Amino acid sequence: MSDSSNRAHGYAVRRVLPDAPFLIAATGGPGRGEYPTHRPVWFMRQAGRSLPEYRDIRADIGMLESCFRPELVCEITMQPVRRHKVDAAILFSDIVVPLKAAGVDLDIVAGRGPVVANPVRSAADVAALPRLEEDEVGAVADAIKLLVSELGTTPLIGFAGAPFTLASYLVEGGPSRSHAFTKALMHSQPDVWNALLGKLTDIAITFLRTQINAGVDAVQLFDSWAGALSLAEYTKYVLPHSTRIFDEVAAAGVPRIHFGLGTGELLSAMNDAGPDVMGVDFRIPLDEAVRRIGPGKVVQGNLDPAILFSDWATIEREVRRIAREGDAAIAAGATGHIFNLGHGVLPETDPTVITRVVELIHTL
Amino acid sequence: MSDSSNRAHGYAVRRVLPDAPFLIAATGGPGRGEYPTHRPVWFMRQAGRSLPEYRDIRADIGMLESCFRPELVCEITMQPVRRHKVDAAILFSDIVVPLKAAGVDLDIVAGRGPVVANPVRSAADVAALPRLEEDEVGAVADAIKLLVSELGTTPLIGFAGAPFTLASYLVEGGPSRSHAFTKALMHSQPDVWNALLGKLTDIAITFLRTQINAGVDAVQLFDSWAGALSLAEYTKYVLPHSTRIFDEVAAAGVPRIHFGLGTGELLSAMNDAGPDVMGVDFRIPLDEAVRRIGPGKVVQGNLDPAILFSDWATIEREVRRIAREGDAAIAAGATGHIFNLGHGVLPETDPTVITRVVELIHTL
Repeated sequence: MSDSSNRAHGYAVRRVLPDAPFLIAATGGPGRGEYPTHRPVWFMRQAGRSLPEYRDIRADIGMLESCFRPELVCEITMQPVRRHKVDAAILFSDIVVPLKAAGVDLDIVAGRGPVVANPVRSAADVAALPRLEEDEVGAVADAIKLLVSELGTTPLIGFAGAPFTLASYLVEGGPSRSHAFTKALMHSQPDVWNALLGKLTDIAITFLRTQINAGVDAVQLFDSWAGALSLAEYTKYVLPHSTRIFDEVAAAGVPRIHFGLGTGELLSAMNDAGPDVMGVDFRIPLDEAVRRIGPGKVVQGNLDPAILFSDWATIEREVRRIAREGDAAIAAGATGHIFNLGHGVLPETDPTVITRVVELIHTL
Repeated sequence: MSDSSNRAHGYAVRRVLPDAPFLIAATGGPGRGEYPTHRPVWFMRQAGRSLPEYRDIRADIGMLESCFRPELVCEITMQPVRRHKVDAAILFSDIVVPLKAAGVDLDIVAGRGPVVANPVRSAADVAALPRLEEDEVGAVADAIKLLVSELGTTPLIGFAGAPFTLASYLVEGGPSRSHAFTKALMHSQPDVWNALLGKLTDIAITFLRTQINAGVDAVQLFDSWAGALSLAEYTKYVLPHSTRIFDEVAAAGVPRIHFGLGTGELLSAMNDAGPDVMGVDFRIPLDEAVRRIGPGKVVQGNLDPAILFSDWATIEREVRRIAREGDAAIAAGATGHIFNLGHGVLPETDPTVITRVVELIHTL
């Protein structure tokens, strides 16, 4: 394994988008909280079921299958950019795509989520877990190459699932509220746990490097379920692995974002993993987040996606509140604010409301 | 509506259990952190699917039906007391029982949870919501009377669902992760919201008074989903209603416990509602909880139920850690510690492990 100062393979030369508000904010420039044109905004799950054009195009195609068709990934990723005029695209994919690509027997079941045929709960299970080769996610790289030319000056965000969240799917065999078998493995067999997270860390690094080499302009590491852990558990059993991911992709020079749901207690520790931008759950005001993580980072978030189900007066009031708290975060030492939701777009969201919210944010 | 200084109906004379460790701890006596015999323990969801004798007795009986059969409620409530020797029984019931009793068309669907036939989303829906009369939950009162004689010197805890959590089921029509329609109603139509929570508060008060009059020795108010709210939302839209519940049952003189999942950000506000005992989610160390809520309250919790899936060495280490943190909470100003889980017993838990955990806690 190469380290970041002496890596076996460097990163491809990338396009430069000096005027993209998202990238300017994500890199904390040109100045704290200065937005050359407007405050940038994108939404987690902006590509997906809230859009009728997405439901049409996915009507006869399974979720995982769709993630391995470059033209389809490109089209779905473009849909919210065309419709909402957001300031960044996020690659249409799923956090289990690299596991599937590596050969793990799993599927995404509608209404349930990822289901793993053979849960991973022993040293032998971990040893049998395949590694990911870059060419196994070649379809994702091809999709990114299509997107870079299609997007023009709109940046593209790549992403990967963080080791804890991937581990939970593998250990539980599917989505879980309690993460009971995952936590039991962590505590009872820490060597097996660390071997598992080590392999998932390698997979995430390979997946992110593939995306970066193919041309994404930023990456986000989703530790969706980290909020199920206590701070002590996160710090001991998860943080070292997530830190290695941020370290290993640092040399690429693209902004690195980190996010997890319900992570108010973990924000400082997750920030210690080394991202450039901290995504903040809707429960924690952005300026309070800065008090927890300290100054010098960009914050991203954090309108509650449920607010989009309210009347427009409420939505406008809440959007303005988030913008104010973003400004307060910058006053408290953050180097920028990227507007986003505090979790993903809910499938039942009215897409015309999302478009209107983008227009409003661009005036704030 | 009567207030607590001039209520229309008083409470029945109740039994006195001067030596019950649970009640001694719950009332902060005889001295801070002094346990005459042992540190008391009970578990949320101790009566339920983790017990084979429960699965047997419920095999052919629906969940809601079982909650209205006094002999069955008595037997199910007794099962974990007999088996585990816990220091308190908790009434076998469900938070939607008073809604069902009042005439709301709902059912508890296996594998899904409560499903409401006609979601409540308008002023007319709220106006049509029935009130609860004490005789409509007479079966619950009868079960409590049976239990008081059956339990001997073991205290019985009654409970009710808090208005926000009940409202979420009614507004969403069933369990929800996003609580989107609930939050939309709260923000968009605050008058309708407050009318709804007012009625649910009345129902909770009637249900708790019925239980107290029938003989429960303590009550717990479950705001299971409050952790989905920001502190600002909780304080503005929920706290006044939960406060009224604690106020209205204060005169009964039984310990009043409050608990919600994922409520680290809300602990201080939930404590402002006025309970005697604060239940603490597994994510927040008990001594940290005291720093958030201030001194003078009893803390209850907070072993992660997932830990019970670990090997015994891990379980013992974690149980001892919780006891130490309970002691640290008392050193920080709490007036007692009641051992519990930081959420309910998971259905797949090995009941022999639970029994062994009780034995261990009684030595600590």
